[in-house]
Amino acid sequence: MSLRHILFGLMSTTLLLCSGCSDNNSATMVSPGSIAEPERRFEWKMVTAWPKNFPGLGTSANDLAARIETMSGGRISIKVYGAGELVAPFEVFDTVSRGTAEMGHSISYYWKGKSEAAQLLATIPFGLTAPEKNAWLYFGGGLELWRELYAPFGLIPFPAGNTGVQMAGWFNREINSVADLKGLKIRMPGLGGEVLARAGATTITLPGGELFTALQSGTIDATEWIGPANDLAFGLHNAARYYYYPGWQEPGPTPELIINQAAWESLPPDLQAIVETATKATSLEMLANFTARNPQALKTLVEEHGVELRALPDDVLEELRRFTAEVMQELTERDPMAARIYQSISEFREQSANWQAISAKAYLQTRDQ
Amino acid sequence: MSLRHILFGLMSTTLLLCSGCSDNNSATMVSPGSIAEPERRFEWKMVTAWPKNFPGLGTSANDLAARIETMSGGRISIKVYGAGELVAPFEVFDTVSRGTAEMGHSISYYWKGKSEAAQLLATIPFGLTAPEKNAWLYFGGGLELWRELYAPFGLIPFPAGNTGVQMAGWFNREINSVADLKGLKIRMPGLGGEVLARAGATTITLPGGELFTALQSGTIDATEWIGPANDLAFGLHNAARYYYYPGWQEPGPTPELIINQAAWESLPPDLQAIVETATKATSLEMLANFTARNPQALKTLVEEHGVELRALPDDVLEELRRFTAEVMQELTERDPMAARIYQSISEFREQSANWQAISAKAYLQTRDQ
Repeated sequence: MSLRHILFGLMSTTLLLCSGCSDNNSATMVSPGSIAEPERRFEWKMVTAWPKNFPGLGTSANDLAARIETMSGGRISIKVYGAGELVAPFEVFDTVSRGTAEMGHSISYYWKGKSEAAQLLATIPFGLTAPEKNAWLYFGGGLELWRELYAPFGLIPFPAGNTGVQMAGWFNREINSVADLKGLKIRMPGLGGEVLARAGATTITLPGGELFTALQSGTIDATEWIGPANDLAFGLHNAARYYYYPGWQEPGPTPELIINQAAWESLPPDLQAIVETATKATSLEMLANFTARNPQALKTLVEEHGVELRALPDDVLEELRRFTAEVMQELTERDPMAARIYQSISEFREQSANWQAISAKAYLQTRDQ
Repeated sequence: MSLRHILFGLMSTTLLLCSGCSDNNSATMVSPGSIAEPERRFEWKMVTAWPKNFPGLGTSANDLAARIETMSGGRISIKVYGAGELVAPFEVFDTVSRGTAEMGHSISYYWKGKSEAAQLLATIPFGLTAPEKNAWLYFGGGLELWRELYAPFGLIPFPAGNTGVQMAGWFNREINSVADLKGLKIRMPGLGGEVLARAGATTITLPGGELFTALQSGTIDATEWIGPANDLAFGLHNAARYYYYPGWQEPGPTPELIINQAAWESLPPDLQAIVETATKATSLEMLANFTARNPQALKTLVEEHGVELRALPDDVLEELRRFTAEVMQELTERDPMAARIYQSISEFREQSANWQAISAKAYLQTRDQ
């Protein structure tokens, strides 16, 4: 029995039933003098995979919790824990699965050890951009696949954010050909890291807090992080000279809110709708936040810190695309759920590319030539 | 006194106070036998500028109202009226300003007659895309300007949707140079229409329902509407041969939810948060819906109906951009609020363009070459 269940038991003996909570559209009336029934209140924990108050990600988790509390009139209160405060960042999935915390804010490529297919819900190299990703999730069958994948773990997933297209990373040497990737020591997690390894790079995973020192000391030659706003805050421009684009490896990563299934089912329909709607608002706001802050940070990096922007050469990107196809083929051959998700994403992407070519891409080419 | 106020009076005598409604975070207890206080319930009207259940726009208004009702546990119920059911589409602004309806779902370029500056909040030629628009509204000062503009009318505006980049329109003759725009009879409302008029076109405004007949009969030579999904539903491909892109005139139009200020202030904080959050979810979902449906409709138009896609030539777009600058200069000279809004948008766009060039645009160029 979790702490939550104990709290429910305590609360149910003392609190007043809210007349509107579970009884939509009708005007419930309780006569003065009748026995008051308890209103259920929920005191939940949200564990996160981000450092406490980490800009863009940790702050979005805070805002999401606060929004749910306010909308519920205080019927749900949520205590947010930064990475390491209650559990380590990579324990978020298990902690919510067990019900020790009711909620977690994280990103699914951390759960490769549970399911290789989970990585595909976060982002894939040469995959969907943020607007396409939301279209696929909500109107292209993506979220149904995600729910199916997480069901055996007793978890309900909700998309809860998007950073937009990331950067390819910070490099201490120029990348002029595929040969320059050979022997490169680079911090790059997930599928992008697997792809770079095939190109001959040595890829390692490091927590964000160690990137600067590793890069400055020469332990690594390059690192991927997020984008101008977060990278500037970490001071990565003081440890590397070249800032490469585009972020082929993470074109539209989607953080998740995961909820313990039993906890979710204990919520009345109005509170379920509040939680679900709050995640959509978080998705909108996180992308808007990065889209607003990245241009300012980019200007600071280039104009004040003399950072040199570089495009990855076309033949390098072509080679990375070829290795991505290999990685995805092997992954989908050994994991049937990954195969179904990848097929769904690939079909969506193929059709979407034709529309993007004459809408957003053509428009930006015209406007910003 | 509006119907709403009368209803409040009736309800306040009969309903029970919800213990959690306005009392965040504390466990309120009402002893059996105490006098029950009334829970406020709100029966609101939402007038819209769209035909009832119109795909993408009318359906979003329906979903928004339903979402608010569910989240509020029925404490707000909202009856949605299609254009013409309660008032004509262009009367939405006045109807909500007067409080005859508490809410309206519409788009601000319809209110040029009230304030020329209002048009700029919807969309401007060569303006912001959907992700940029949300960034500017929520993190770039845009929404504050919008609220300031609507305050004298007793209205609180909320962004509530985005269609994404639209198409330039359907044409019955090819546009190979600026000369081909001279004498062209085209349906194009708003600032885009003013720009085309300077290029020598005759622009007219027609409701959507009359487009097909006007185009087929030759009353007009061309028309702008929305994008593949909505245009296919109207059968415009049966009345015109060429489908032009990109939608320079409406790159990221933002529908609005407007709320009567007194009605808004009558809501307790939890219901205000519910309404505001619901609009953000609507913004996310509308764009996702168009982003998912447009690619499918485009495929149908091209492969099944033989529609010919055409890009507007660069020199035509350059000329339209020149005329846009003229139109905006004159508008901002005669309307100080338009000047402030346009300056804010322009500064945001200039900085954003540098980031889009190395993120979304560079990424799509690589992915979809």
